[in-house]
Amino acid sequence: MFITLEGPEGSGKTTAVDYAVKALEEKGYQIVRTREPGGTPISEQIRNVILDKNNTKMDPRTEALLYAASRRQHLVEKVWPAIKEGKIVICDRYLDSSLAYQGGARGLGVDNILNVNLFATENTFPDLTLLFDIKPEEGLKRIAANANREVNRLDLEKIEFHNKVRETFLDLAKRYPDRFVIIDASKSREEVAKATLEAILSRLCK
Amino acid sequence: MFITLEGPEGSGKTTAVDYAVKALEEKGYQIVRTREPGGTPISEQIRNVILDKNNTKMDPRTEALLYAASRRQHLVEKVWPAIKEGKIVICDRYLDSSLAYQGGARGLGVDNILNVNLFATENTFPDLTLLFDIKPEEGLKRIAANANREVNRLDLEKIEFHNKVRETFLDLAKRYPDRFVIIDASKSREEVAKATLEAILSRLCK
Repeated sequence: MFITLEGPEGSGKTTAVDYAVKALEEKGYQIVRTREPGGTPISEQIRNVILDKNNTKMDPRTEALLYAASRRQHLVEKVWPAIKEGKIVICDRYLDSSLAYQGGARGLGVDNILNVNLFATENTFPDLTLLFDIKPEEGLKRIAANANREVNRLDLEKIEFHNKVRETFLDLAKRYPDRFVIIDASKSREEVAKATLEAILSRLCK
Repeated sequence: MFITLEGPEGSGKTTAVDYAVKALEEKGYQIVRTREPGGTPISEQIRNVILDKNNTKMDPRTEALLYAASRRQHLVEKVWPAIKEGKIVICDRYLDSSLAYQGGARGLGVDNILNVNLFATENTFPDLTLLFDIKPEEGLKRIAANANREVNRLDLEKIEFHNKVRETFLDLAKRYPDRFVIIDASKSREEVAKATLEAILSRLCK
């Protein structure tokens, strides 16, 4: 079982998944929680190239290809082996993030980015994608309130950018209704956490 | 004008192009000679990840995506600007190498690799591709005779691998007859050099 988490920073997905993972482990499920590059050295080297602040000339297509390369390696070294061992893999962000950020908001085209990622993943879609949906203004307000969390480059993008990301995620949820579950992340922490656990459990019992 | 050189090590392409470039410069043409990563810092960082000897776990698709990313950045930073200035860009290896090595010989599929590279290059094909064609046995014999040139990982691949590379290059020449010119690299250095210059000149005068 392969579960991915999507949605902006400030949507509370980490807290919600902490809660869900604890409950699932108590029920005896074996969970592998990861996020790209996930500690695989090759993926981390690739990620370092993407995040290097000196690489201001990086073209958006170069960036999209590097994300796909990092994703591929993480899949091969970490995700597939864990799934093969019967574990539940919960991955924070996956191909839908590339579709929403690079494809939608950066204007490279969702289908262009999808094609590259179909090659990278050999058509490996998640069994379940939890979309933590929240208005960008609200998400950013929550980030700003959290003194422990440094505001990064993406936070500072214009609000229209974040609106476009959100819109693309919601389009993807319509395009892939079988794997997407939208969690209303504007609700209280407790409600979001419960909805998250419920969505995972109902998929496990299918 | 965008010219690419393809063909194995030991096919004498460097010597042949040295001769052609000299002759073209004497005729007043401005030539930019390059090869990926071409001194662009981002492409070089990507190339370092590909060539790092510790990265033994690198998946072939990861490698293909990294080559495409490096190609993209080299194109954006070096090839396109030079073409825009009216220069002749001669690039040692380009997308056909990925098609032949990763697509053909490593078995990832020529069309799969082509798709990724169409995204990376926004369909930028060379105006002219010189294929320096030689039987792998002959090419390797020439490399072995050259004491100044270290034998690398690719040299040591089995001869079947090199045969498959050659076969794919020849298939590509059939698929793209308008841009491919096959140079018989088994001939003498002088003959190969003259055929190279002739192919470039006849394309320039079209």
